[in-house]
Amino acid sequence: MDEIKSVAIVGGTHGNEFSGIYLLRQWEQQPQRIQRQSFSTSTLFANPPSYEANKRYLDSDLNRQFSLADLDNIELANYEQSRAKAINAFLGPKGNAKTDLIIDLHNTTSNMGPSLILLQSDDFNKKMGAYVMQNMPEAVIVYEDQCPVEEQLFLCSITQQGVIVEIGPQPQSVLRQDVLDQMEKMTLLILDFIDAYNSNTLPALNNYSAYRYKETLSLPTNEQGERIGMVHQHVQDNDFVALKSGDPIFKLFSGEEIYWHGEYEAYPHFINEAAYYDNNLAMSMAEKFTVVL
Amino acid sequence: MDEIKSVAIVGGTHGNEFSGIYLLRQWEQQPQRIQRQSFSTSTLFANPPSYEANKRYLDSDLNRQFSLADLDNIELANYEQSRAKAINAFLGPKGNAKTDLIIDLHNTTSNMGPSLILLQSDDFNKKMGAYVMQNMPEAVIVYEDQCPVEEQLFLCSITQQGVIVEIGPQPQSVLRQDVLDQMEKMTLLILDFIDAYNSNTLPALNNYSAYRYKETLSLPTNEQGERIGMVHQHVQDNDFVALKSGDPIFKLFSGEEIYWHGEYEAYPHFINEAAYYDNNLAMSMAEKFTVVL
Repeated sequence: MDEIKSVAIVGGTHGNEFSGIYLLRQWEQQPQRIQRQSFSTSTLFANPPSYEANKRYLDSDLNRQFSLADLDNIELANYEQSRAKAINAFLGPKGNAKTDLIIDLHNTTSNMGPSLILLQSDDFNKKMGAYVMQNMPEAVIVYEDQCPVEEQLFLCSITQQGVIVEIGPQPQSVLRQDVLDQMEKMTLLILDFIDAYNSNTLPALNNYSAYRYKETLSLPTNEQGERIGMVHQHVQDNDFVALKSGDPIFKLFSGEEIYWHGEYEAYPHFINEAAYYDNNLAMSMAEKFTVVL
Repeated sequence: MDEIKSVAIVGGTHGNEFSGIYLLRQWEQQPQRIQRQSFSTSTLFANPPSYEANKRYLDSDLNRQFSLADLDNIELANYEQSRAKAINAFLGPKGNAKTDLIIDLHNTTSNMGPSLILLQSDDFNKKMGAYVMQNMPEAVIVYEDQCPVEEQLFLCSITQQGVIVEIGPQPQSVLRQDVLDQMEKMTLLILDFIDAYNSNTLPALNNYSAYRYKETLSLPTNEQGERIGMVHQHVQDNDFVALKSGDPIFKLFSGEEIYWHGEYEAYPHFINEAAYYDNNLAMSMAEKFTVVL
């Protein structure tokens, strides 16, 4: 891969995920914290009106508006659909972007710790994961590489190299010091990695364990589509802990328990994420694997 | 005090505090769970439109609209100001209420555990606290009795006997099984207590430790009123843990730490509650004392 010459750090894609929004403000005061020798760094506050409204979004989820078809469809005209096109023009356009790499900063209400979500498993990303893990052993590396980057809907898919920094648990509309510190640490490590990659000064990197997205589970609903149960407390807060076949995953309001019967060893994450209720989602499932460099 | 003849359980006063809303639905299916021999129990979903909007409130905080002056002021006409008057007519009117006791169900993002908030320290409430503690040792009893009940702004101040069941931590717009179970347990214990009180069958009750609200601390701000710091991680999640003079309570974005210098042993609670950001509040402070029966 060519050298990375321009990096954009994006915060506030979701208006009630505060860590990125506050970090952008701090970096505006002290820009040297995100500047590196071998590339330029810019910042972007993606969705200020949703922050003002103290909501994830005004009309629709900004972080699902970046398919090539939707970006090309001018009839998709609500606030986030419009804002996506503006951001795409500013950092992109997707497929031929003037920016080389986007770091999009997110929080989750789930107990995922400091997670780095990578959209493809190329040599660059595999090394980035190794570098972050070696300097931040508490980090978790998640590959969401089930489709080519250009087919992804995420903001950071504007650029071929795009990553999501996802830190939790943090309630919506809250700022936690520990979560803020983890987000800054991981973001600065990514910048350090890019700088070392550009200048061919990467340290020795080791193979590591990571997770690969597999599927998303829905909450149990009745025929009218109403939720009839919740995430079981056996699973709650146990992100990235292996589920065994027969383990309880849902508790119905009737008292009944629903069990996991998967054909693989599943590592749930995004467990009981507040923003997933819109679509009755309960958690994502991943498989664990070893990244070989 | 006279016998309690009618109890109203209120949920969804804040639309993004899900436990009470879901419990009301379950009790609708199985009303016998909240029925007791010596009094009638009704339920009320206080703010359905704010639940539909997935927000605490549409226009203003419903749980601050119940002063006698505001209830009498027909010019206060936004949604929650109007809904408050409707609820007051239905359960009250405040000062001469047809309901004897209101239990208002709330969640907090703070690590307060199962808390019972009492608005006056009369013999009835002191015994209620003892009864709940004896049957639920993890419960915390908080007296917010700094003014007469009729001067309180809370929904449950419609009735002279009104209590708040406040369970956390739970992010806004999330339903946790453990929090739901604690809320139902505490609510049913309050109903059991009332039934035993009415029928003169209370067990022997013991003195207990409780907390009394003292003051509320604001987040540090600059001259423009912008937040310049956050709750220190030394305090985060340590609700009802004593603060000593000299302990850090805020971390400024500049890196500086702010210390607590109180003239009393303070027990912080509602620490970093999401809903408090509207007013730049950081936490409430209480003193610990012994309730003597």
